[in-house]
Amino acid sequence: MSPHARDVYIAVIGTGGIGSVFIDQLANLHKTYPVHIHLIYIAMVDKALHYADYREIDIPTAVEAMEKHGAQPPSFSTVVNFLKDAPRPIIMADNTSSQGLADMYPEFLRNGISIVTPNKKAFSASYKLWKNIMEAAEAHESFIYHESSVGAGMPIISTLKDMVETGDQITRIEGVFSGTLSFLFNQYSSIDGSQGGEWSETVRLAKELGYTEPDPRDDLNGLDVARKVTILSRVAGCPIESPKSFPVESLIPKELESMMSADEFLDKLADFDHHMKGRRHAAHSVGKVLRYIGSVDIATGKAEVGVQIVDKSHPAANLKGSDNIISIYTKRYGALPLTIRGAGAGGDVTAMGVTGDLLKIVKQSK
Amino acid sequence: MSPHARDVYIAVIGTGGIGSVFIDQLANLHKTYPVHIHLIYIAMVDKALHYADYREIDIPTAVEAMEKHGAQPPSFSTVVNFLKDAPRPIIMADNTSSQGLADMYPEFLRNGISIVTPNKKAFSASYKLWKNIMEAAEAHESFIYHESSVGAGMPIISTLKDMVETGDQITRIEGVFSGTLSFLFNQYSSIDGSQGGEWSETVRLAKELGYTEPDPRDDLNGLDVARKVTILSRVAGCPIESPKSFPVESLIPKELESMMSADEFLDKLADFDHHMKGRRHAAHSVGKVLRYIGSVDIATGKAEVGVQIVDKSHPAANLKGSDNIISIYTKRYGALPLTIRGAGAGGDVTAMGVTGDLLKIVKQSK
Repeated sequence: MSPHARDVYIAVIGTGGIGSVFIDQLANLHKTYPVHIHLIYIAMVDKALHYADYREIDIPTAVEAMEKHGAQPPSFSTVVNFLKDAPRPIIMADNTSSQGLADMYPEFLRNGISIVTPNKKAFSASYKLWKNIMEAAEAHESFIYHESSVGAGMPIISTLKDMVETGDQITRIEGVFSGTLSFLFNQYSSIDGSQGGEWSETVRLAKELGYTEPDPRDDLNGLDVARKVTILSRVAGCPIESPKSFPVESLIPKELESMMSADEFLDKLADFDHHMKGRRHAAHSVGKVLRYIGSVDIATGKAEVGVQIVDKSHPAANLKGSDNIISIYTKRYGALPLTIRGAGAGGDVTAMGVTGDLLKIVKQSK
Repeated sequence: MSPHARDVYIAVIGTGGIGSVFIDQLANLHKTYPVHIHLIYIAMVDKALHYADYREIDIPTAVEAMEKHGAQPPSFSTVVNFLKDAPRPIIMADNTSSQGLADMYPEFLRNGISIVTPNKKAFSASYKLWKNIMEAAEAHESFIYHESSVGAGMPIISTLKDMVETGDQITRIEGVFSGTLSFLFNQYSSIDGSQGGEWSETVRLAKELGYTEPDPRDDLNGLDVARKVTILSRVAGCPIESPKSFPVESLIPKELESMMSADEFLDKLADFDHHMKGRRHAAHSVGKVLRYIGSVDIATGKAEVGVQIVDKSHPAANLKGSDNIISIYTKRYGALPLTIRGAGAGGDVTAMGVTGDLLKIVKQSK
């Protein structure tokens, strides 16, 4: 390790899909950046490990040690109390999707504990929570970064922030923000004009390939996209009240919204295939395609999320696989937007966004 | 201005197209970020203004004051001597394209003077200079950022650095890196299959629209693209020796390389139109298009720059206007690259990259 290596103390909450890859990246980080990561707290849903004297937990074996020697996790308030007296800089990495933990962010920040996270909840719940978080960070000179809350490791949030901070004016943001819905429409309404299968079959295929949540309705309701549009709008300076304060088109037929298993839902979805088929026909017959798009006009605050008929030259038309795409229109960029495209999900790239955020804090720490 | 505003001292060298916009952004920066910019040195080719006591120069009127009260610019060594005793943090913004100033970067950095610049020369000359610069910055804890040296304000270099620092492995970089050559081929070999005019007419049109250098041969020789490929390769960890150490296809017929004016060149270029026409025909007859592409395979260090026949689904095929595009293939991103597309030239977005770099240094300064 470099003699210039900086010390940083870290608490990791959440050791699932993203958390475990993040821990793996932490374990190897000293090979590519001169930093000494001291892991002093690690927790999953029902286990947590830490030492009262802030003794370092060996990172490569941390999960194993937690599972073997860990205790019931303390409350988040107790975690704040433990971390506030830790050596500095101290960072809490939230790799959960917990609203309860998100609600505690202001407490962490007020106590000088910085945060890195892919958890969308804190930034897409009420505008009041967003404001509390940003004000707590500013007043107490702690940092909060959440690059991976939209588009995984792609440089989207950092780019929007750079634009705002350097005085550009963002006018419009538009894109495909869900890997699942990207895959579904790229398959179902292909740019090469081939028809693809029935809508319900396409959803079933996506589920089988692991592209959907265990219950595909959690993708099809559009809430995930609405959350991302909310986050981007706020970063761009537009105070969207909540992901439920603008029109979001759900792809779940009203009759199938609840009270059945995911399997039963998939079976019954076939009864509604003709709806989507009609929309696809309308698009293809004029040489266009269907895409599930989120957008916001920053000046007016008008946001919307839903299926659109787009031209084949539209940036979203030509997507592959489950790629995300975002177009950012600004005053400085003029008529043609800055467009970023790539994998917006997956453990490796999501964890990379969190690790990158961590290094940003390390670099800025005194 | 916020009471938390940080002080930063800055020397601006170069007040041309990019420099003047940069100064304008500096003058307004306090409105969007809590920073107090102290301009203590400003210079153009034949004038420079500074005060021995590091007194602040009013930014909005700086160019005017320099033109009125400025003296003959001192040598770059004298500038280093002046700046090394300035209050910290001190940043030199090089908005020139001077190789002489680029050669002095190690001197600036060794004296604790950080650098922000869109000037490609320092990073695309000999590998030895690159190494001297990076080593000087590391040893003396000064910063050097050059986002705008490739793709103007687009987040390309910062993204590559984040990938490297967090432990991703970049495998391949490919793209269209010249706004001029993007425009020429988007016009000449359009994705909609229309033939476009003759090659020489397209070049003439680009010149008339202001898309080329005063002498279009400075774009057509490919050196600008070769420099950018060199920079990106090095940032990605591949020690390319120089922009002349790999194959670069010049679009200037051998017979027209020198000894004539730009106008005469344009007249005579028509005699060679059949060459490019044949290549276009070869591409279009199989449903493909011509694009001028730079690429590097990071593992083998194999770089090349030149005209390629690409499929219409290739990211570069669908470009508009004079947009740049870059695709970054990495281990974590897998088969589909991270792709960034947008304006890669222009005063506003180029200066924004430099201003963004400045803020990165402000944030990291103690």
